[in-house]
Amino acid sequence: MKTQIERIEQALTGFLPAGDDGIRTVIESMKYSLTAGGKRVRPVLVLEFAKLCGGTEDAAMPFACAIEMIHTYSLIHDDLPCMDDDDMRRGKPTNHKVFGEAAAVLGGDALLTLAFETVLSEKAAELNGYEKCARAGRLLASCAGAEGMIGGQIIDLESEGKSVSADHLRRMDALKTGALIRAACLLGCISAGASDEQMKAAEKYADCIGLAFQIVDDMLDVTSDEATLGKPIGSDAENNKSTYVALLGLDVCRSLVSELTDGAIAALSVFGSGTDILSDLAKALRDRQN
Amino acid sequence: MKTQIERIEQALTGFLPAGDDGIRTVIESMKYSLTAGGKRVRPVLVLEFAKLCGGTEDAAMPFACAIEMIHTYSLIHDDLPCMDDDDMRRGKPTNHKVFGEAAAVLGGDALLTLAFETVLSEKAAELNGYEKCARAGRLLASCAGAEGMIGGQIIDLESEGKSVSADHLRRMDALKTGALIRAACLLGCISAGASDEQMKAAEKYADCIGLAFQIVDDMLDVTSDEATLGKPIGSDAENNKSTYVALLGLDVCRSLVSELTDGAIAALSVFGSGTDILSDLAKALRDRQN
Repeated sequence: MKTQIERIEQALTGFLPAGDDGIRTVIESMKYSLTAGGKRVRPVLVLEFAKLCGGTEDAAMPFACAIEMIHTYSLIHDDLPCMDDDDMRRGKPTNHKVFGEAAAVLGGDALLTLAFETVLSEKAAELNGYEKCARAGRLLASCAGAEGMIGGQIIDLESEGKSVSADHLRRMDALKTGALIRAACLLGCISAGASDEQMKAAEKYADCIGLAFQIVDDMLDVTSDEATLGKPIGSDAENNKSTYVALLGLDVCRSLVSELTDGAIAALSVFGSGTDILSDLAKALRDRQN
Repeated sequence: MKTQIERIEQALTGFLPAGDDGIRTVIESMKYSLTAGGKRVRPVLVLEFAKLCGGTEDAAMPFACAIEMIHTYSLIHDDLPCMDDDDMRRGKPTNHKVFGEAAAVLGGDALLTLAFETVLSEKAAELNGYEKCARAGRLLASCAGAEGMIGGQIIDLESEGKSVSADHLRRMDALKTGALIRAACLLGCISAGASDEQMKAAEKYADCIGLAFQIVDDMLDVTSDEATLGKPIGSDAENNKSTYVALLGLDVCRSLVSELTDGAIAALSVFGSGTDILSDLAKALRDRQN
């Protein structure tokens, strides 16, 4: 998986525009966050589901890069002072701390735009054909938009300081983080021309690891330390944020994560062999420390 | 043209997601700016070029709506406190004044995302085929991104308070406003399956009216009044902004706009008849009061 991540990071940089001096700031803003050491979970999901469904890594790579661009833009905008107002991300100053708010807004906008340029690029069309590229772009937009990730973020902002139910939290996360993870798994399927049965299994896997991912996030905010996590801990409690841990307790969270991980791995059975990386990924997300 | 604009506004609203109570704020933020009475120049360009090149208004409509969504998102983000910090737009409070900064950032993000969902929608694909939709989305992304509109905005921000040359201004505007006007004309061509000669003529027309539009903007900031313009006048001088008027004087600006308008109309000759609306539009942009 390490060489795969290197290939993803190389491809990501390759899709960045060269630009000239006049627009240097926005390109640097994009590049800073795109190369700030993300876990690359979403692009790996794209590539692995593509291969499982009989496609190739090469063809799926533009889709993989696009989803990481969207994930990255969402982090830049979420960290803004008017949103979550975070100074640190992955152990580094957040984008607006380095480039200022204007360049952070524009760098995020530009990454979101570049995601669609990448999905619809000549290279993507050569390898996948226009129909798959268009369907991939449509799916990406619907998962990232007002009824997907952005909707989740507004629910999150409006839930601040309110006590909400676990169901509310679950719906919020299904949009805020779940939608993009689902998009990642399905983009791989689209690139490979997967069957309906394969698409359904990919969705099931995505929904399980998506929710598990979020519960683990809440757990780490309580159980980890700042050096390991790369950002301040205890911020959820400090912000009076309703979390799975606060609502259900650590023990229930732990067994939920364990069940969801098992569910994700079980969903992979329709693919037969070759699912090791995806089942390892589900376990790694369960056991992660940051 | 009035009924055409009504059809555009109806289609625009139709592409907005219905949403539910949880995401109401972001949908309202999108809707507020999208229905705030823009001139709809860009969508009219899409539809008119489509018809001139033998296409239909129906097929071009999703592309027309998409470009207006991108234009609208760019205004929302440009007005933010960290950007141009404007309180009024088209005679109404700006988006962040009504919904707050977070919902303005997210509403803008969601409109940008919806633009691509619209270009790649089932409806757009039925009417245009996947290849045209993908090519339209790619063009839109490249014109709206870091090497297009967003690049122009960063150049603009970094030019603030500096004295720059008319050439610098021209390059900035070619990106900041020109790129999207060019995209509008070409999207119509793409929907209609235009010839290379037609595409070149559309680009020429776009570049002429794009520059004229920006020069007129600078002129109105000096010659208009707040009630007519719908926003405070004299803001360029107040912000020490280099403008065509400041650099070249009103008289030179007036004759430049006149020449560019003539150039735009001349470019339409390759289309034969049916160009009345586009030549009237070029003249209306020259003579506009707001």
